[in-house]
Amino acid sequence: MKEVKPYRRKVYYYETDKMGIVHHSNYIRWMEEARIDTLEQLGIPFEEIERRGIFCPVLEVGAKYRASVHFGDTVFIYTKIEKYSGVCCYMTYKIVGEDGTLYTTGYSNIGFLKEGGGILRMKKEFPDIYEIFASQVEEEVSSFYEKT
Amino acid sequence: MKEVKPYRRKVYYYETDKMGIVHHSNYIRWMEEARIDTLEQLGIPFEEIERRGIFCPVLEVGAKYRASVHFGDTVFIYTKIEKYSGVCCYMTYKIVGEDGTLYTTGYSNIGFLKEGGGILRMKKEFPDIYEIFASQVEEEVSSFYEKT
Amino acid sequence: MKEVKPYRRKVYYYETDKMGIVHHSNYIRWMEEARIDTLEQLGIPFEEIERRGIFCPVLEVGAKYRASVHFGDTVFIYTKIEKYSGVCCYMTYKIVGEDGTLYTTGYSNIGFLKEGGGILRMKKEFPDIYEIFASQVEEEVSSFYEKT
Amino acid sequence: MKEVKPYRRKVYYYETDKMGIVHHSNYIRWMEEARIDTLEQLGIPFEEIERRGIFCPVLEVGAKYRASVHFGDTVFIYTKIEKYSGVCCYMTYKIVGEDGTLYTTGYSNIGFLKEGGGILRMKKEFPDIYEIFASQVEEEVSSFYEKT
Repeated sequence: MKEVKPYRRKVYYYETDKMGIVHHSNYIRWMEEARIDTLEQLGIPFEEIERRGIFCPVLEVGAKYRASVHFGDTVFIYTKIEKYSGVCCYMTYKIVGEDGTLYTTGYSNIGFLKEGGGILRMKKEFPDIYEIFASQVEEEVSSFYEKT
Repeated sequence: MKEVKPYRRKVYYYETDKMGIVHHSNYIRWMEEARIDTLEQLGIPFEEIERRGIFCPVLEVGAKYRASVHFGDTVFIYTKIEKYSGVCCYMTYKIVGEDGTLYTTGYSNIGFLKEGGGILRMKKEFPDIYEIFASQVEEEVSSFYEKT
Repeated sequence: MKEVKPYRRKVYYYETDKMGIVHHSNYIRWMEEARIDTLEQLGIPFEEIERRGIFCPVLEVGAKYRASVHFGDTVFIYTKIEKYSGVCCYMTYKIVGEDGTLYTTGYSNIGFLKEGGGILRMKKEFPDIYEIFASQVEEEVSSFYEKT
Repeated sequence: MKEVKPYRRKVYYYETDKMGIVHHSNYIRWMEEARIDTLEQLGIPFEEIERRGIFCPVLEVGAKYRASVHFGDTVFIYTKIEKYSGVCCYMTYKIVGEDGTLYTTGYSNIGFLKEGGGILRMKKEFPDIYEIFASQVEEEVSSFYEKT
């Protein structure tokens, strides 16, 4: 398993709302940024995944907000690949402040399809991508298959 | 219980991404639009809630994407107040197409605080707002208190 | 020349920023919404333009902010096709409040290309679209050609 | 005059649209990011400006798009303070690719007001901020006063 560094992100002014805090929808976007940064660190840039004709719709996403992030803050996003089946990939996120405050936790489930929507056999068709994802997961792949 | 009409929304061009579909983060924003529309229909515009010094941070949010929405589509968002405790309000959403396709389901949990962050006794301090929310919930308020 | 009704738009909560006003970038997005609404009113939905293989990149955009729009406000956006050459279309926008306040003025210049980037002869290849645009312009097309 | 380094920015997936390019409104947001980064480099973080009770509405903004930026690209934004009068600050922007391609040029004009909207005498009330801005301008301040 390759170690992935947290994704560092400063808050942008336009991400705040009239409550004076970062609007909750932006954390969902930050999670995408962190996911893409993670893939790049693992050696499979998202551009490359798309270039190979793999279509990756988001199947599920969610976040729990514990503390508000403000303009001027910098956060670190820790991404973890929890489950991977070749068909979809479930990741969790922790958004943490510079002082260690846990601001937000979140999750996403991404699917892998052929462009156009057909089923993709990742292990067979793109074994290199399959391996990179699979090697990051602690949980056994087989057990996840049963659950999904 | 007052009947609430679904919130009608056309897709904006800038809400699509390079996959050619609406970016998943925008459904989270649509849910906010639908929530605010629902409050307006119930007779408590969100502006009014804020004017009274009630601060409503989003505590939790999530969505499950079943089918992609495209530019040119119009969706209808059905909002339901599932639980309400005076302290927080849990709503669910269904995003449905003109032909009845269920595109997305989602949920949000909103908290009610005093401006500045103190605990708010909605039932005592704003009984009119309390009543409007409470009257929309099917589940008994007491049972939710125990769960939360 | 067909009369075009102004585009009505309520402010969304997530469009505000920590200054408590609508973030200036969102007016640029509203102008796009108004432009697309205008095209629909004129009988050429943007989906249709794209379906015919016409690629419409924005070449230029700008806005002058005179008064701030707030959450709770509804605005009306008046779009005018000022110049049209078949190659590009210059429009201006007025964003006006319910009480007539002029909030913002803006402009955009849109190009018409073939998908992939080649030059498009709108008049020859899509005379119906050409006519709709051209008929909305007061200024003579020929004079614009010289200026561009 | 202090030298300001260009602002480096990777494209985020959610910033693209169905044309497959970065949506034009996002460049306006990038310009804000670059502006705020510039102020930080000059020693006056925007948080600090706001903390002192200075309200900085955007008065004008615009961009000219020359080439499309795609997902996977990294851009560098060069910000220049062109004019400064204590009352407003006119900046220009160049968005350039890693290979030197000039993607976009833009401008913004920011006003400086007291919180609440009153006129601010920056030179008198915040001479340190005044000096930082003024020292970055090549053009003489006096000549701009006449023009404005």
